Amino acid sequence: MPDTTPAPGSGTPSGPAAAPAPGPAAALDLTLDGPALTAALVDFPSVSGTEKPLADAIEQALRALPHLTVDRHGNNVIARTHLGRAERVVLAGHIDTVPIADNVPSRLDDDGVLWGCGTSDMKSGVAVQLRIAATVPEPNRDLTFIFYDNEEVAGHLNGLGHVADAHPDWLAADFAILLEPTTGEVEGGCQGTLRVHLRTRGERAHSARGWMGSNAIHSAAPILARLASYEPRRPVIDGLEFREGLNAVGIEGGVATNVIPDACTVVVNYRYAPDLSPEQAEAHVREVFADCGVDEFVVDDHTGGALPGLSHPAAAAFMAAVGGIAKPKFGWTDVSRFSALGVPAVNYGPGDPLYAHKRDEHVVVERIVHCERRLYDWLSARPR
Amino acid sequence: MPDTTPAPGSGTPSGPAAAPAPGPAAALDLTLDGPALTAALVDFPSVSGTEKPLADAIEQALRALPHLTVDRHGNNVIARTHLGRAERVVLAGHIDTVPIADNVPSRLDDDGVLWGCGTSDMKSGVAVQLRIAATVPEPNRDLTFIFYDNEEVAGHLNGLGHVADAHPDWLAADFAILLEPTTGEVEGGCQGTLRVHLRTRGERAHSARGWMGSNAIHSAAPILARLASYEPRRPVIDGLEFREGLNAVGIEGGVATNVIPDACTVVVNYRYAPDLSPEQAEAHVREVFADCGVDEFVVDDHTGGALPGLSHPAAAAFMAAVGGIAKPKFGWTDVSRFSALGVPAVNYGPGDPLYAHKRDEHVVVERIVHCERRLYDWLSARPR
Repeated sequence: MPDTTPAPGSGTPSGPAAAPAPGPAAALDLTLDGPALTAALVDFPSVSGTEKPLADAIEQALRALPHLTVDRHGNNVIARTHLGRAERVVLAGHIDTVPIADNVPSRLDDDGVLWGCGTSDMKSGVAVQLRIAATVPEPNRDLTFIFYDNEEVAGHLNGLGHVADAHPDWLAADFAILLEPTTGEVEGGCQGTLRVHLRTRGERAHSARGWMGSNAIHSAAPILARLASYEPRRPVIDGLEFREGLNAVGIEGGVATNVIPDACTVVVNYRYAPDLSPEQAEAHVREVFADCGVDEFVVDDHTGGALPGLSHPAAAAFMAAVGGIAKPKFGWTDVSRFSALGVPAVNYGPGDPLYAHKRDEHVVVERIVHCERRLYDWLSARPR
Repeated sequence: MPDTTPAPGSGTPSGPAAAPAPGPAAALDLTLDGPALTAALVDFPSVSGTEKPLADAIEQALRALPHLTVDRHGNNVIARTHLGRAERVVLAGHIDTVPIADNVPSRLDDDGVLWGCGTSDMKSGVAVQLRIAATVPEPNRDLTFIFYDNEEVAGHLNGLGHVADAHPDWLAADFAILLEPTTGEVEGGCQGTLRVHLRTRGERAHSARGWMGSNAIHSAAPILARLASYEPRRPVIDGLEFREGLNAVGIEGGVATNVIPDACTVVVNYRYAPDLSPEQAEAHVREVFADCGVDEFVVDDHTGGALPGLSHPAAAAFMAAVGGIAKPKFGWTDVSRFSALGVPAVNYGPGDPLYAHKRDEHVVVERIVHCERRLYDWLSARPR
């Protein structure tokens, strides 16, 4: 019932609603304001792997909105407008949380801070998605709302990835916004991450007769020296300065305290700016360690980065509407999945990433209102 | 009954005797020749910690020899002559073995090789001790026979160490021979061994924002570089060339694959020649790594070496009697315990150290006969 829904921010935060009993029958009330809807979502537990009741409730609430078509794949819910607009924008968010740590139900304090598991990462963002879905029946750009599961666990379980594989057409768009916690700032693109195991080999011997063997840990000396002297790049892309890093995140070697070790493994993590393709990134790391005596180079994990894409017209218009200056995203996020589909994407949400996954997770409710208002204004304005 | 005992080597190896049922009642027959007695000892299991029945049998056999006084401390048996000779010589051996690996009972093959757990390390040596005890009732030097337990396990359990602590007077002597496997060559002295943990410290950060932390693994680069370029000494002591070694035997660092590690530990083993005291050895290692950014230097384990002592008259006479050229012992052995008591000591035994602790452990029976003969001749000869 979008026409009876109050405009965003028109009420004062009313405090957490009573938690619905999670289950197939639990309903979401999209007439609540953003902060109250956030509280209702936090009080509806959905730890990774247990999202079905919440996905059911979201699907039910969206199906009640006549301007949207709704699709579902597993516990992923996709709702779209079909107004024939010149551009299509995605608003995406994951509905799962990390495990609850004695921080549910939510609690609103006197300073306008809402506490609880998922307040920041990212039920406040999901609340904004639902509010926009309910309050902007005739957006100036066609909209795609994506609510997906299993973002907080292993990448192969990620619901957005499953939808991208099974129904890539559902994700087709000119621009995507993930409402991940960014304290209301726009974070563009994300860096890629490559993890390799660099192994050196030696020959075992008793350490009392070390000259009869060959020490694989000593052979790793050039690898560590190279890491210690490496100068990471800081390239500027679309006006954003990225910062790369090449780091040992693990080292292991040794057989017994009286044995010359025959193997040593250095685990290296390369975080690279999105102007490098995954192939270029791997080639770079191979080159860095080319003359360091590496006997085995094993790629353990690799996911490419995502260009900020801020020069795209839809992105530029969004930046103009929300104001402020975009920042680069150093960590890897799901914007990379959109990037891989050719959709420029940014993170922009009301939560605070510093408190994500923490027992004292919280969100400033004013930011929820602010974020919703910015998106509402941008998507409601008459195209110039 | 020493006077009825055949002289060493007077019989052909008769093959393994039927294994006695190990237990308090099992008896050792010291009239068997060296190889047969070795087989009987191998067939009398005495894995470290289970030596009591064998210690009982050895004590019982020695108490039957009227020229010896017998003492016991735990499962350690000490037998001595008291003839008022000018010199006293120790013949020592441990009676325990590493765990049996489907290699008991013993087996004598057609090539005169006896196979089985402990054949080499060191029941062939123990058999020679027992044969000398039985066949040399009036040695030209007073003799001390030591049979001790728990040599193959942690140092603090070692029976020789317990006797040295409780009854140092029982070990008083001018010279000691440990019948450890040396393939019939004399090995003089032993190197010391020092193990230290070198720790570097850093500061954790997410690897996507590595510049916010400090990488402890990278900080270990100078330590590995120093190890890789270290030139060990080869000092000549008492005519024996020792070979030192400074090796990493372990390295460990890493918190998670996306975290800059805040700690790294390199475990270093220094094997040093016995011209250095333990204090000098530790000072040397501290100096080697003085400018390598080590945040913590922890001595994990340290046992000093033993000088060869081959210039002592008893040692020189022994060398002349057994012939050949002494070799240095690179590994740490119990000769160091005698050295600490002021008793020069060497290793000299029929076993082959290359096969110690192995499933295919064996001894060439001719070497048992040879070793027994050499000791018999040296200890029976009229003093010149």
